[in-house]
Amino acid sequence: MTSSPSLAQALLRPASIALVGISDDPGKTSGRPLLFLRRAGFKGRVYPINAKRTEVQGERAWPSLTSLPEVPDHAFILTPTESVLPTVTECAKLGVKVISILASGFSESGPEGVAREEALRELAASTGIRILGPSSLGVVHPESGLVLTANAAFAESDMPRGKVFVASHSGSMIGALVSRGKARGVGFAGLVSVGSETDLSIGEICQATLDDPEIEGYLLFLESLRHGEELRAFARAAAQRGKPVVAYKLGRSAAAAEMAATHTGALAGEDDIADAFLRDLGVVRVEMLDTFLEVFPLAQRLGATQHAAPRRVGVVATTGGGAAMVVDQLGVRDVVVQPASPETLKKLEAAGIPGNAGRVLDLTLAGTRYEIMKAALGIMLDAPEFDMVIAVVGSSARFNPDLAVKPILDSADHVKPLLAMLVPDAPQALAQLTQAGVPCFRSPESCADAVSAVLARRSSGVGPASGHPTSSEGHAISEAQAYEVLDILSVPHAPYVTLPLRGPAATLPFEYPVAAKVCSGQILHKTEVGGVLLGIRNETELAQALVTLGNNLEVRAPGVQCDDVLVQPMRRGLAEVLLGYRVDPEAGPVVMLAAGGIWAEVLRDRSIRLAPVPLETAREMVAEVRLLQTVAGMRGKERGDLEALAQTIVNLSQLALRPDLRICEAEVNPLMVMREGEGVMAVDALVLQA
Amino acid sequence: MTSSPSLAQALLRPASIALVGISDDPGKTSGRPLLFLRRAGFKGRVYPINAKRTEVQGERAWPSLTSLPEVPDHAFILTPTESVLPTVTECAKLGVKVISILASGFSESGPEGVAREEALRELAASTGIRILGPSSLGVVHPESGLVLTANAAFAESDMPRGKVFVASHSGSMIGALVSRGKARGVGFAGLVSVGSETDLSIGEICQATLDDPEIEGYLLFLESLRHGEELRAFARAAAQRGKPVVAYKLGRSAAAAEMAATHTGALAGEDDIADAFLRDLGVVRVEMLDTFLEVFPLAQRLGATQHAAPRRVGVVATTGGGAAMVVDQLGVRDVVVQPASPETLKKLEAAGIPGNAGRVLDLTLAGTRYEIMKAALGIMLDAPEFDMVIAVVGSSARFNPDLAVKPILDSADHVKPLLAMLVPDAPQALAQLTQAGVPCFRSPESCADAVSAVLARRSSGVGPASGHPTSSEGHAISEAQAYEVLDILSVPHAPYVTLPLRGPAATLPFEYPVAAKVCSGQILHKTEVGGVLLGIRNETELAQALVTLGNNLEVRAPGVQCDDVLVQPMRRGLAEVLLGYRVDPEAGPVVMLAAGGIWAEVLRDRSIRLAPVPLETAREMVAEVRLLQTVAGMRGKERGDLEALAQTIVNLSQLALRPDLRICEAEVNPLMVMREGEGVMAVDALVLQA
Repeated sequence: MTSSPSLAQALLRPASIALVGISDDPGKTSGRPLLFLRRAGFKGRVYPINAKRTEVQGERAWPSLTSLPEVPDHAFILTPTESVLPTVTECAKLGVKVISILASGFSESGPEGVAREEALRELAASTGIRILGPSSLGVVHPESGLVLTANAAFAESDMPRGKVFVASHSGSMIGALVSRGKARGVGFAGLVSVGSETDLSIGEICQATLDDPEIEGYLLFLESLRHGEELRAFARAAAQRGKPVVAYKLGRSAAAAEMAATHTGALAGEDDIADAFLRDLGVVRVEMLDTFLEVFPLAQRLGATQHAAPRRVGVVATTGGGAAMVVDQLGVRDVVVQPASPETLKKLEAAGIPGNAGRVLDLTLAGTRYEIMKAALGIMLDAPEFDMVIAVVGSSARFNPDLAVKPILDSADHVKPLLAMLVPDAPQALAQLTQAGVPCFRSPESCADAVSAVLARRSSGVGPASGHPTSSEGHAISEAQAYEVLDILSVPHAPYVTLPLRGPAATLPFEYPVAAKVCSGQILHKTEVGGVLLGIRNETELAQALVTLGNNLEVRAPGVQCDDVLVQPMRRGLAEVLLGYRVDPEAGPVVMLAAGGIWAEVLRDRSIRLAPVPLETAREMVAEVRLLQTVAGMRGKERGDLEALAQTIVNLSQLALRPDLRICEAEVNPLMVMREGEGVMAVDALVLQA
Repeated sequence: MTSSPSLAQALLRPASIALVGISDDPGKTSGRPLLFLRRAGFKGRVYPINAKRTEVQGERAWPSLTSLPEVPDHAFILTPTESVLPTVTECAKLGVKVISILASGFSESGPEGVAREEALRELAASTGIRILGPSSLGVVHPESGLVLTANAAFAESDMPRGKVFVASHSGSMIGALVSRGKARGVGFAGLVSVGSETDLSIGEICQATLDDPEIEGYLLFLESLRHGEELRAFARAAAQRGKPVVAYKLGRSAAAAEMAATHTGALAGEDDIADAFLRDLGVVRVEMLDTFLEVFPLAQRLGATQHAAPRRVGVVATTGGGAAMVVDQLGVRDVVVQPASPETLKKLEAAGIPGNAGRVLDLTLAGTRYEIMKAALGIMLDAPEFDMVIAVVGSSARFNPDLAVKPILDSADHVKPLLAMLVPDAPQALAQLTQAGVPCFRSPESCADAVSAVLARRSSGVGPASGHPTSSEGHAISEAQAYEVLDILSVPHAPYVTLPLRGPAATLPFEYPVAAKVCSGQILHKTEVGGVLLGIRNETELAQALVTLGNNLEVRAPGVQCDDVLVQPMRRGLAEVLLGYRVDPEAGPVVMLAAGGIWAEVLRDRSIRLAPVPLETAREMVAEVRLLQTVAGMRGKERGDLEALAQTIVNLSQLALRPDLRICEAEVNPLMVMREGEGVMAVDALVLQA
């Protein structure tokens, strides 16, 4: 999939548009698009189509698509659900490039709707017509006056233009974003309501516009992770072009995920996996709606100037209380504000600025003056200990922007990003800063959210993932076979032998005590069928164990195929973790490290990345699992072999490069973390293979 | 401490004011108060005092306080640090009721400053003069035109009046709040910058105004928890009068706490303890600056109508995407949105409103119309399954408030709170709703923060705590003595005997294996001196252990007084917790339950409350510690005796009612949680007594 100028052309700059089913009443949903197009001065040709009228809203109406003097580039279908399919069929026959469908009533509404949607999809595939929606409120492109939408919010005609393109699962949000943007001096290069993405997905639409020089970045409003493959391709291509992608995604809480599912019929988009997916692809995922509108200039500045994520933030303030709020909110998000170095303090002193040894350069004592602020910002931006500087401005931002806001504007061309957070309500100063491209924020929370989201953006160089079977296609293989897969990947495991179930005990190549486990691809949860016996101390007990396991299976899993018992020495580590690999239907291959056993469930103490991961990323994952802090050098505690653990994560994640193995899921649980220098050791494993 | 009308009078409605050290230049900090008072039309008498001028800003200036024709009620001292003390002394001599001090340079700046502040405090104590500050930017009371402040933000004269009184540690924040409030249609009954609270604290100032009928609630901007005793008395009195108290407190992150300490010289205000303190006293602690301004009407509505905290939230929306954001943000904060009951859905259907079985009543299909919205809100508010209803309004809020905002206004007098969250930028609708007293929010995050903060407010009926020694005054008693204290409180512990160190072993009243521990009030951390031996299997080993312990002490703690060894049977529970009681210097007695040992440190998995706690509160604490979910009935896991644990929390917390015991700290670690029905058991304890 590459950038597609012809699709972008038909979508955003069509030469001609048909409005199928347009109403004479511009107050009705199905009457709005004509009114809006005229108000916005759309320069292309517009064909109102209404079978029952010769005139609509004072314009000539055409009875049908076939009666038009030309084949329109883009048709917006405003008719009820039932008539959509015949209309699309007609469009396809005529050779319309793109159609947008307003109606709902497709996959989200029962078997009949699902069939309708399937028919649409087939039509697109077989004829090449491209479909936006269903449930799309349309598309807006201010430059060409294209306000092709039924969203009532676009009744306002003075829409500020900007550099950012919006793609949204929610149709109402494109209107909300325009109004909120207007209040903040933020405009858009275009907005599209993608509806249920039956054919055109967010990824494909955005990718089609990537070479448009008017579009410098993207905002994605996501209800869930859908069409991951296309989103992945787009995100990678956008990163290559240095065009930042920002996402606001629902589903942080379970309740909302459930709602997104019933709402959209999306596959369960588990938020943690989506989060790893977005961040690993370099997408800036924000937590707050305000940040969604505010973060772009920062994402653009950092994207353009740095490869490695900067971490060192300096703060200059004309208000101690305001600065403390920003520092606090950054701290909550694990971004630590650095104090100025002694060298920097010396320079400040030399410039007549009373420095202080605290975390923030507080200019309160120096007074809020242009020269002071300008000099302080210059010294802080030049200081090698900072990668970015945040200026927190107090009341003067509102009543006298010349004092502390102008120096920010005058320092904004520094190679390092300079951010502004205004403590009072100061809409004019915010607008000035926004206009000048200075990343600026109206609350300490959105400022901190933006910094944290931009820093959390990773570029792990994850390649395109394809050809992997997903979990639903897989079946389990036995524990012994699973260890063979681990051997291929160099994931260490405890030694084992297999003995025939109900057969005699044998001399073991390792010492007692041992564990004995039924060994069969048909038994996924061994303990649940009484298939695990621990603490076997000698050969007699082992013989007994083989009999017991056989009996247990007969009673609790009758008819299940199981010929072998796997015998392993009992091993304990300093810590137990779960290491898992799976192919998510949307995100593709992911690798997860989690606190072992019950802890993962209760604490959700885990770290997820797209697979494969390099060693550096694996180390980050180890650092993110809080449980492992107990073996990372805590006072009075032994150190675990965390370096071996990181290497093992790397090794398991290589499954993403081995589609030939047909592995869709591989879970080591527990993986024992031994003492430093003694490695790690899998003592159970479950592998699903297609 | 009771409400003090005379203090409130002198502070907010003084008949006469002296401005000591007022500058002729109204642009200077020390010149502003005169300009602002005149602009605001202050009706009392104002005496500019300037020793070097006969006229200031066009008004007659007086050479000194003694030259005035009367003793002013309130003096604002604008002179430099050095001259503050003599001026205050003079004020005290003359009988000025209240003085406010602008200058900084007191306890925050070295030993000399500390001495100056001490002198101020003594002056207040000995003469009865009341002091606001130092480092106070002053006080503002719109009703009386009192703009007695050096905060430049008050140069704007059109300050909206409101019902809420603001007290702030940060002087710049009072200006920021006024400007932000103005943008939201929120005004204030008064604002005070309390500075370093050398004499007058936030608690005392607010309490003094409690009987003012113009003041219906309070906003506190706190850098840290200071003067806890007075804050506690105020919060309790405010709760009794049904006047909500809202707090925004810094220090969520460690970095900010450190900063607050260097900034203000406050005692380390550990945020978790402050959080328990505020919430237990019924204070609404918000996380976001926007919420700080927006939450009051909700806090007031719920405070007035309910005793038990409501938990069941219903959502009505004209936009699916907008509603999903609110539901998601509520979910992140553990507030679950309820779907409508079948009965309610039936009523909606009867009213011609297409219901849906989802979590949110989404009116998108019904269209955004007054009648639909009004009927839907009425049915939802009447439904017994909801304690409050949130209306999420889409684009129409901006371009046609009659459609969905007016029905909210027309339904706002329902006995249950109706909240509004507007998805577009819609300042006029927000102002209308605010004007009508409807709790309304401009972002999904602040809406959810407000609901969650109001629900987290508790009223545990915690009585005044006094007479307790704090930790710094205490010394440890031995483990055996600690168990005697636990016996008084009915906190179960393992049986034990004490044997003389280096004495002979003896026959034990319980079975082996046992643990032997050195037993001395001089040894706080027994393991660090080799003072604990575990797994002793018989009398011979016990005799040996006594010798080993003696030798260890000789080597690792020479000269420490220790005569006894405490011997205990080895006991393990299903889970290990830490149960602690301490007297915080600000918050008073608190009780903490935490995941045991290393977990508490790594996971901060803990629950804190003001002590004493009733059983219901103790059960909440048990539910809040995530570790304990593993023994609360998880699949395949045994249940622990969590009811006994709750009762034990209650019992330990009774220390708060026993100042006679002189206990300032008592920690049981670990406390073993046994199987259901088998109770809990302390196997170590550390008690500090004054």
